Amino acid sequence: MQSLGCEVAALNTVQFSNHLGYGQAKGTRATAQEITDLYQGLKDSYLDDFQMMLSGYLPGAASVEAVGTIARDLKYKSTMKPGSFFWVLDPVMGDNGKLYVAEDVVPAYKDLIKDADLILPNQFEAETLSGVKIVDMESLKQAITTLHEQYRIPHILITSIAFPTPGATPSLSVVGSTFTSGAEPRIFGIKIPAIDCFFSGTGDMFAALMLVRFREAVHNTDGLMQTAAWVSSDEVDATELPLAKATEKVLASMHEVLTRTKKQRDEELERYHSQVGARDTEADTKKLKLVTSKAAEVRLVRNLDCLKFPEVKFVAEKV
Amino acid sequence: MQSLGCEVAALNTVQFSNHLGYGQAKGTRATAQEITDLYQGLKDSYLDDFQMMLSGYLPGAASVEAVGTIARDLKYKSTMKPGSFFWVLDPVMGDNGKLYVAEDVVPAYKDLIKDADLILPNQFEAETLSGVKIVDMESLKQAITTLHEQYRIPHILITSIAFPTPGATPSLSVVGSTFTSGAEPRIFGIKIPAIDCFFSGTGDMFAALMLVRFREAVHNTDGLMQTAAWVSSDEVDATELPLAKATEKVLASMHEVLTRTKKQRDEELERYHSQVGARDTEADTKKLKLVTSKAAEVRLVRNLDCLKFPEVKFVAEKV
Repeated sequence: MQSLGCEVAALNTVQFSNHLGYGQAKGTRATAQEITDLYQGLKDSYLDDFQMMLSGYLPGAASVEAVGTIARDLKYKSTMKPGSFFWVLDPVMGDNGKLYVAEDVVPAYKDLIKDADLILPNQFEAETLSGVKIVDMESLKQAITTLHEQYRIPHILITSIAFPTPGATPSLSVVGSTFTSGAEPRIFGIKIPAIDCFFSGTGDMFAALMLVRFREAVHNTDGLMQTAAWVSSDEVDATELPLAKATEKVLASMHEVLTRTKKQRDEELERYHSQVGARDTEADTKKLKLVTSKAAEVRLVRNLDCLKFPEVKFVAEKV
Repeated sequence: MQSLGCEVAALNTVQFSNHLGYGQAKGTRATAQEITDLYQGLKDSYLDDFQMMLSGYLPGAASVEAVGTIARDLKYKSTMKPGSFFWVLDPVMGDNGKLYVAEDVVPAYKDLIKDADLILPNQFEAETLSGVKIVDMESLKQAITTLHEQYRIPHILITSIAFPTPGATPSLSVVGSTFTSGAEPRIFGIKIPAIDCFFSGTGDMFAALMLVRFREAVHNTDGLMQTAAWVSSDEVDATELPLAKATEKVLASMHEVLTRTKKQRDEELERYHSQVGARDTEADTKKLKLVTSKAAEVRLVRNLDCLKFPEVKFVAEKV
């Protein structure tokens, strides 16, 4: 976000030595009270003039609620100035059919998303929030419709959909929608080739870039930034939504950064194998797992050009 | 550091809502144990392959010691490969004749700096560490000589020296030295015009930029990066030291960023005054103090060009 020109105040909900993809980590979690105190500190010094808020991983139901209270406070302050505050919520709960947070986090998020402007669930999280099992395009549409209707969420972006398509080149889809004034969905999808590698942090990267690019797309649309929740008027088609345009740019950036990361990862692992040779003690197996995680760390700092100057190759199509 | 291409692992020693220039803040300090644990977490996953370490503000003697243990561990690992680890230590203790840390932090730092490669004290901290009161050029040289001799610190940079010079345009000097093989000082100084404004965070900004630019200057000198502590050979003059060249670039970047910040600060305060008008209740006075602090926040994110492309205007002179 900073590399794209945003002034950011980060509130760390955890301080870990490394991400959990390594299978081990040391560090601490901020308590709900600490989160609440930090926000109070910002308010005390008139430092709470945020235009946008992005919430990501939270370590428990109490901190989900604490963050909800902050977002509602910022939202309340902006009531008299429609569009002056926008909340992007990534409801981090799990992936691939499995919860990786405590069970009480689920109802806490269900309560929260009613106040969010844009949510970024993955397929599993979208299922968990909507109660709709996503197995094909029809059920996907149903899930999005439910989220718009039941929770009145203006913008939804499901960040990774993969339907089994035997024989086809592996690909991923991002599917999104901005509702109309009647809460009807306007659904678009963007398909990108899958990269055969497990990366960590791509969800956070996607969320951060979406915040910036969506704001930019809204800013480039006359009057939209002064509209509540930045909802485009009804005549705008799904593929012409600022949300769709922003997603195209974000996916272009990400695909390029991850392609470069994969290349460097493979080279690094090849070097490691040629130095270490084939060994198979338990310690070696563990080290290889850790080295493999490190090799796949997203190469961001040296590739800021990919973020700044995305070359759109995968375009939004109407669903 | 990231904007200049460094991969950084940040270990937060505090999480505060704002810097202490506001006169109030909420938040938490990491304990010495937490600092130690985070480093152990990095080691456990082979993530401790750092080429440089920068240590700054630490909340007490125990955490100063914890950070010292980390730096010594990294240094020990590099013994067989001279120049492969470099520690920049900013001994944050106080300013303008006053300590702002607990008294036991002073001996903790005195114990630590013996293992540092470059220290960045301000005038007060240099006095505290050397035991020499700095009042003129002679005593300044004496302080630097003492630090080189007594603690065997290879590189010293005193970040803000201001001698009373009645009638002259207000200016600041940065004075530095890299010792020779016989621990003799090679002292240079750079004088910059003072900007009439109180900024916070400039010490951290200076330290971060120094780390990057010094590494770059060393990298551009044949073989120096493979030399213990990156100490230039004896025939290199004070003003030709990589440390001097790096300081020139850093001061160019800082002067430009702070000049722009000052301009925007003045505009912001003018707007505030014209909106609010003259009022003088106690609450107004307090708010004005906070608003003034915020207006002086260093404008970094939108001015990365100043960091990336410094235009050297103030050059090092031999002292």
